[in-house]
Amino acid sequence: MKLHPMWSEYPTLKNELNETLKKMEDVVRLKNKPVEQAIKETIHAGGKLLRPAYQLLFSQFGPEQDREKAIALAASIEMLHTATLIHDDIVDEADVRRGQPNLRGRFGNTVAVYAGDYLFVCCFKLLSNYSNSLKSLQSNSRSMEKVLDGELGQMDDRYNYHLTVPEYLENISGKTAELFQLSCSVGAYESGMNERFARKAGSIGLAVGMAFQIIDDILDYTKDAVDIGKPVLEDMRQGVYSLPLIYALQTDKKAELIAYLDKKTELTQEEAESVRQIVREVNGVTKAKKLAEDYTKKALKEISKLPDTAFDTREILLSVTELILDREN
Amino acid sequence: MKLHPMWSEYPTLKNELNETLKKMEDVVRLKNKPVEQAIKETIHAGGKLLRPAYQLLFSQFGPEQDREKAIALAASIEMLHTATLIHDDIVDEADVRRGQPNLRGRFGNTVAVYAGDYLFVCCFKLLSNYSNSLKSLQSNSRSMEKVLDGELGQMDDRYNYHLTVPEYLENISGKTAELFQLSCSVGAYESGMNERFARKAGSIGLAVGMAFQIIDDILDYTKDAVDIGKPVLEDMRQGVYSLPLIYALQTDKKAELIAYLDKKTELTQEEAESVRQIVREVNGVTKAKKLAEDYTKKALKEISKLPDTAFDTREILLSVTELILDREN
Repeated sequence: MKLHPMWSEYPTLKNELNETLKKMEDVVRLKNKPVEQAIKETIHAGGKLLRPAYQLLFSQFGPEQDREKAIALAASIEMLHTATLIHDDIVDEADVRRGQPNLRGRFGNTVAVYAGDYLFVCCFKLLSNYSNSLKSLQSNSRSMEKVLDGELGQMDDRYNYHLTVPEYLENISGKTAELFQLSCSVGAYESGMNERFARKAGSIGLAVGMAFQIIDDILDYTKDAVDIGKPVLEDMRQGVYSLPLIYALQTDKKAELIAYLDKKTELTQEEAESVRQIVREVNGVTKAKKLAEDYTKKALKEISKLPDTAFDTREILLSVTELILDREN
Repeated sequence: MKLHPMWSEYPTLKNELNETLKKMEDVVRLKNKPVEQAIKETIHAGGKLLRPAYQLLFSQFGPEQDREKAIALAASIEMLHTATLIHDDIVDEADVRRGQPNLRGRFGNTVAVYAGDYLFVCCFKLLSNYSNSLKSLQSNSRSMEKVLDGELGQMDDRYNYHLTVPEYLENISGKTAELFQLSCSVGAYESGMNERFARKAGSIGLAVGMAFQIIDDILDYTKDAVDIGKPVLEDMRQGVYSLPLIYALQTDKKAELIAYLDKKTELTQEEAESVRQIVREVNGVTKAKKLAEDYTKKALKEISKLPDTAFDTREILLSVTELILDREN
């Protein structure tokens, strides 16, 4: 059980994130021990635990400081996230995640389907056992509805190089930002803050999530496979077009790019590299970075207006947000 | 939208089951219209709606007669059931259900994964919007946990011809009876009955579900493929051994049966037919029928002790239970 080193600067949060991992581990109880073990390893596979971190931080604003509850609810959001990762691996036919064989790679689709379902259920179990009211469960199911609506909608958009920036933003809003939004709003609400504050917290989470996903998509165009631990331009080759490419397609190199994208067979590594070159040349990456910065600024600005807490929460939120949204430099 | 003809004898229930179908249809709203349509067709694909029927009937016992709520909660249980069917089809690599191409057959694993997830979420959405308390959500997630623990556990039992009767019963309890139990207990509890009555309702549901699954497993050994709308002994050939075979293995034809089961390649239709013959000869089917009858009797006996309602619920429960547990004659 090892936590990402980024948290060592924040000892209280680090401690609670360790408790969150423990809680997740406690909840997973299966007769099938190899699968139980594999699920636990998936939980510990080195995710940054960003969603529970934001949820824990936003749970410091309210009058109800029940940390056991806050930790259980943080575990629930990470279990939900892990469930979606396991099911995404079935969809992407991926056998590896973060350089390690994933659950699907080790046990096949069958186990991956049920293991993901099981983590969904664990999430709802924790929520229904620790929430004060049905409100968070309503928010949670509405969020998950959006995520899945987005995932199913995005399938229609594969290999669609007419995808617009607003359409891309809608897709990543469902895919990534929605769960950040949920983390922040549930954290605030369950600590006893009112709905207005919970909505504000949610909008900060949304901006963080948008910036986070855009930066993740930029990495495909700027880093080597070794650095990011997954094949380069994998998404693009599978027809998932992200912001740098969408911006690049708006320039006069459009025809050249489309010639590659129109190929009916999967792009070779060399061809993918050429696409990458063009996207960078015509400032697709620069423009995408600009939009990510806008979202980051929005998030930081809203965070800086948050009220004081006894735990320096606002300053920690600023620091963590700057840290995670500065990944590419 | 057509309901199974068995309900025409019970006009009030029939009406509420039609409302349940409508509610399910209303809840499914996706940007991806072909998938939305396919999910709606799955909902209408001719299931008997037994779980919502039991839930609706048990919701007639309490003082809170909010039929809109009862119908929404009945829809939630059927959506959960449909979600498990869609995911089971991925696991079984099945392209057909009830003689029609299923969602996986039409759209592939990818859509089936997310569509099942989406129905899970719809279930929790309905529950969190219509329940009075967190109690039913807790029961629901505990039940789903058991179902998935059972499914994952059962994988270990594939091709295990040492499977005992208690182990088989535990498997089907998770696979089938648990959701019947949930339907009855949630129906009673959400109508304002106390936990003691809800538990009693649940134990009736459990007995009904056990009998139902045993009878379903017997059909594999008694009916032709044409009659039941699926290939004969498909489960057995995939290593899922059910009660008639388990009983048959307890007789002196054990070695002969094991010779078939020990074959490393999939059984031919002829070999499967021979297994079927032996199982019937040595009274595997007869013994299984006896156990199904015991569960049926238990259910009917407990139902007959239920209190009066203004809706003749006890008599309808007796009639429906006799009807569905008399399928093989």
